[in-house]
Parts: sequence; structure tokens; C-alpha cells
Amino acid sequence: MSVLNTCIGSVAAVCTTLAFVPQVIQSWRTRDLSGISLPMYLIFTTGVVLWFIYGILIQDWPVIIANAITAILASTVLLLKLKSIFII
Amino acid sequence: MSVLNTCIGSVAAVCTTLAFVPQVIQSWRTRDLSGISLPMYLIFTTGVVLWFIYGILIQDWPVIIANAITAILASTVLLLKLKSIFII
Repeated sequence: MSVLNTCIGSVAAVCTTLAFVPQVIQSWRTRDLSGISLPMYLIFTTGVVLWFIYGILIQDWPVIIANAITAILASTVLLLKLKSIFII
Repeated sequence: MSVLNTCIGSVAAVCTTLAFVPQVIQSWRTRDLSGISLPMYLIFTTGVVLWFIYGILIQDWPVIIANAITAILASTVLLLKLKSIFII
């Protein structure tokens, strides 16, 4: 694999993982979850947890680490959404 | 690669790709984008487009197709968010 490919793949992985940081911060601070789709975060978090399990099965550390971080971030938004539905 | 691995990886890919469908439908219908983080969708869409380019570079069809679909869905939410900021 060329250096260019590895570089683009790495930047892509960092972007799709860390993109959820500003969403977590905004949702945590404002508690405005009305525009957030519950089915999206249910399906997305399930998918990321499955990617994490897949990473363990194929013993690929980048897949394990990236999806562990994304799972924590996405499940935080999911819990805030569930809290906004069932507690208010 | 075992059948179990391929199966878990495929379900994971379908989940993380199609998760954005209910978000696009909700955002399109309600036009309630207040809880959606602009930086998240800017960074996420950039990441998915880079994954798409990466897929072309390594000539991996599942990576190309999954990220092409996610790019269309995520950029739709991004455009609705930008519209809600600059037009209203």
C-alpha cells in the first residue's frame, strides 16, 4: 500500500471518528435533542459495536480503536436522546 | 476470512451506512436542525468522501459503494443544516 493511500485512509478514519465530538459537546451543553433521530443513533451505535467486534475477530487494531471511540461518542448522544424522551 | 467474520462485517457496514436514512427523513420532514451539530456533519462528510477516494485508490468496491451512499445521506443533512442557518 502506498504512503498516499495510508495517509488518506488515516485522515478519513480520524474524521469519521472525531466528527462525533462536536455533536456530543453540543448535545451535552444544550440538551437540545429534538432534531436528532433516535432510529439513526440506535442503528448507528449497533453498527459501530459490530465493527468493534469485527475488529476483534480479524485482530485489526485500527478498526478496534476507531470503533471503540466512535461507540462511546455515539452511545453518549443516544443516551442523551433517550433521556430527553423519557425524562422530560 | 470465516463466514462469521464476513457476516458481522457486512451487517456492521449496512448499519453504519443506512443509519443516516431515518435522520435524513426526519430532518427533511421537520426542518428541525437545531440539535444537529454543523461541525459534526462538516467533518463527517469530509471523512466519508475521503473513505470513498480511499476505496477508489485501493479498488475496493464495498468501501466505494458504502461510502458513496453515506456521503449522499450525510451531505443531505449537512445541506439542510446550512439552509436552516443561512436562509431562515
